[in-house]
Amino acid sequence: MQLLKDRIRKDGKIRAGNVLKVDSFLNHQMDIELFGEIGKEFKKRFADCEVTKILTIEASGIGIACIAAQYFKVPVVFAKKSQTKNIAGDIYTSKVESFTHGRVYDIIVAKDFLKAEDKILVIDDFLANGSALLGLSTLVKDAGATLVGAGIVIEKGFQEGGELIRSQGIRVESLAIVDSMSEENGVKFRD
Amino acid sequence: MQLLKDRIRKDGKIRAGNVLKVDSFLNHQMDIELFGEIGKEFKKRFADCEVTKILTIEASGIGIACIAAQYFKVPVVFAKKSQTKNIAGDIYTSKVESFTHGRVYDIIVAKDFLKAEDKILVIDDFLANGSALLGLSTLVKDAGATLVGAGIVIEKGFQEGGELIRSQGIRVESLAIVDSMSEENGVKFRD
Repeated sequence: MQLLKDRIRKDGKIRAGNVLKVDSFLNHQMDIELFGEIGKEFKKRFADCEVTKILTIEASGIGIACIAAQYFKVPVVFAKKSQTKNIAGDIYTSKVESFTHGRVYDIIVAKDFLKAEDKILVIDDFLANGSALLGLSTLVKDAGATLVGAGIVIEKGFQEGGELIRSQGIRVESLAIVDSMSEENGVKFRD
Repeated sequence: MQLLKDRIRKDGKIRAGNVLKVDSFLNHQMDIELFGEIGKEFKKRFADCEVTKILTIEASGIGIACIAAQYFKVPVVFAKKSQTKNIAGDIYTSKVESFTHGRVYDIIVAKDFLKAEDKILVIDDFLANGSALLGLSTLVKDAGATLVGAGIVIEKGFQEGGELIRSQGIRVESLAIVDSMSEENGVKFRD
């Protein structure tokens, strides 16, 4: 998606440790007009999937998922991150390892909101090691629902997540795949 | 807002400890069509305010804020919750006490995203004890920006937050104010 790539080149900041800071438009301050274009693009790519629900994970996936959901005309469910050891109630749960924050946390979704008849599109802002996406796909599987695919805004193509997820037969549509980045040469996108 | 009150009566669940569960349409599963109507209503109520930015707090405020922002044509910034003791970088920070989770946490916003010339509308899903809203208003004040008001989806009118915030001269527009609720008599809204 050219508009997004241009924006990453213009406003993205490359930091040590392969960090791509896009917090001026994607995951702290959010450019809602850009989100609209992102939402339309996801709809175009998953137009054939009869999506019944969008699933994302707090916090930075929520805005993108909500704007995109307007084009699909479906509700959004967001998985909650929890460090609570004893989780009560009727929930699906899975584990996600955050490399950014260096810890493992549980993610949970109430069983009421994922049903066997649902066709789920997962939407998230980043795909890097793939742990969040794997965790979300586990929730979908546990619910007996169908995972139609994952819509990702930025995929770090030099990390293992994309290959890992695709090797499980999950359709991944990333609007920008970063193949390499450095402060000297900027961001190189996959064609 | 009648549509919202009807929905709370229909799908809201009253639980012990004055808990109003609206997770089937507001803060876990999210009804995006309803969010659109909520966004339009906020725009109507704050039409005269020349809002330049919407500020909310993760996680459940984000979806509502993003949908509403489309009608204001402004970006959204969400304050991040942090339990990190040493916060690095150029940030505004404040403390919020969560009664639901029984702890105090820091909220942070990067200084880049709140400017003195900004006219900020705060949007959140709930107003109960007012702690989150006070924390957000502190961030706005520290940035030297103008707080034009707060748009709240559900205010618990029997808790002290609404009075506390309004007594500070902050304009609060709540789309539904719950004056009392019980499993026997259901939800009573303020007129």
